[in-house]
Amino acid sequence: MVLKRGIAVAYAPAAVGNVAVGFDLLGHAIEAPGDIVSVRHADHDRVVIDEITGVAGELPLLAEENSAGAALIAMREGLGLVGGFSVRIKKGIPLGSGMGGSGASAVAAVFAANDLLDEPLAVADLLPFALAGETAATGAAPIDNVGPQLLGGLRLAHPDGGTPIALPVPQDLQCVLIHPDCKIETRRSRAGLNENIPLTLVTRQSTLLAAFVSACHQGDIDLLSRSLRDVLIEPQRSVDIPGFADVQRAAMENSALGCSLSGSGPAVFAWCRRSDAKTVAAVMRAAFERSGLASSVYISAIDAPGARLLENDNNL
Amino acid sequence: MVLKRGIAVAYAPAAVGNVAVGFDLLGHAIEAPGDIVSVRHADHDRVVIDEITGVAGELPLLAEENSAGAALIAMREGLGLVGGFSVRIKKGIPLGSGMGGSGASAVAAVFAANDLLDEPLAVADLLPFALAGETAATGAAPIDNVGPQLLGGLRLAHPDGGTPIALPVPQDLQCVLIHPDCKIETRRSRAGLNENIPLTLVTRQSTLLAAFVSACHQGDIDLLSRSLRDVLIEPQRSVDIPGFADVQRAAMENSALGCSLSGSGPAVFAWCRRSDAKTVAAVMRAAFERSGLASSVYISAIDAPGARLLENDNNL
Repeated sequence: MVLKRGIAVAYAPAAVGNVAVGFDLLGHAIEAPGDIVSVRHADHDRVVIDEITGVAGELPLLAEENSAGAALIAMREGLGLVGGFSVRIKKGIPLGSGMGGSGASAVAAVFAANDLLDEPLAVADLLPFALAGETAATGAAPIDNVGPQLLGGLRLAHPDGGTPIALPVPQDLQCVLIHPDCKIETRRSRAGLNENIPLTLVTRQSTLLAAFVSACHQGDIDLLSRSLRDVLIEPQRSVDIPGFADVQRAAMENSALGCSLSGSGPAVFAWCRRSDAKTVAAVMRAAFERSGLASSVYISAIDAPGARLLENDNNL
Repeated sequence: MVLKRGIAVAYAPAAVGNVAVGFDLLGHAIEAPGDIVSVRHADHDRVVIDEITGVAGELPLLAEENSAGAALIAMREGLGLVGGFSVRIKKGIPLGSGMGGSGASAVAAVFAANDLLDEPLAVADLLPFALAGETAATGAAPIDNVGPQLLGGLRLAHPDGGTPIALPVPQDLQCVLIHPDCKIETRRSRAGLNENIPLTLVTRQSTLLAAFVSACHQGDIDLLSRSLRDVLIEPQRSVDIPGFADVQRAAMENSALGCSLSGSGPAVFAWCRRSDAKTVAAVMRAAFERSGLASSVYISAIDAPGARLLENDNNL
């Protein structure tokens, strides 16, 4: 397939992965923060990352090791593209935050590159390339982040690996996402999980998941709040996050419907009614402060949009 | 609470437990077969089982060991009832079939006894007593059978143990339930399951469950057929059922949407469109015959009603 000359710029949002009940299979987009990726047609036949700015940390410039670069390599190979890409990345999502930073860069990269195709693909068809990028960066390709970051909303992994299933989100709910100033590596955090789960615990978590999915479809806030819990992964991962129990308690005592880790943490999310969001955010922030951690707080719709093109790269 | 003098007779249906995707947490009622229990007020303060007829096998007459008797004992104690019960049971559900026989007797018993109360309870409030009966008989109290047998329909266990959640069933679907002439003890079958499940398998089965629940709410038959699968329990239990793979293949090659064990088996269920039900039933029966097993076949609505009172005990 032929590439158009020119440049395209795309934004992809952060995401809450797992959402307490759906380890590696459920996630939702967040309005902000997000990553911005600029993709320019190049006459060579490679993917070259020219620059990474923003909260970039120690991200690799080598395309094969960078989620945006690896996603574009997969896209070039998968579509047999003639021509290469020059890439600039502006990270808005802190590394190792549990907010889907590597997924956002991969999604924004393929979303922008799609705009340079003579015949752009349907957005959902970009998912395999974004997943390939995520795999290169994190060693795994859980679909929980990347699906909603590309397509928006609250999404379940599809049983056949196809387009993640959109779940309706009860109206009037918002997500508070708080990122304390400490870092957990996804790759390391994943390796530390128990590989085997007692069957009774599987049934318990499955009951929560099934009730949650049903509650979303019914718009049943009461059932949703009873089911938005993680008895499977949170007990293992939360011990590494200073003050987590205090933060969770503060959220739940202030009318949050559920509160757990975003992805592998340390970011923590809470779902709540719109009218409670500011209070929930404030008490969660105060709780992290009691553990000596500063934090960044984001309040977002749960049914937030996925990736989008930006007019130009002035923001980059 | 005071008991009225008299007699009440109730029917409770068989059920498909687990329904492939929801081990110990999902089930649905079947129109027939079912158990009929007659409960008569007695002046003593005990529960006495006078008779068990039908496909009774070797069921214990000792009330404490019988699911109907144990359920009534729990009900007498829980409600502080004055007076006892004389009980007759007509088993329509074969023992050890995987069709919820012990649950049906327990449900029919409490449903009938409720009619003898001065102020009958709401039907859902009978669930704990029926579960206590099931526990006495099988050593476990999975809610997957008993909830639908009492309340009807396709039901998910509630995360707090409350009234199981009714799931909508896409119209025009039926269940084929086939019981081959061989027996598996629930107690033994449960003990034989792996106690620990690999996390990757947990995620895979959870993806199927979540997609299934979503498909039911959306009425999405295609998604339902892609998700109605058991990668968790069926591989362990099906090896004890002669011809299972052949039966399942026959169903799926004849347009079944899904086919797996009912409860712990050996009964096998398939969901299919109404227009395919007779064909699916015939090919499943033929497949069991190829393994030398005669079988009984039942075709039912999936959204079948739960327990009901009978006019009298002429059928007993």
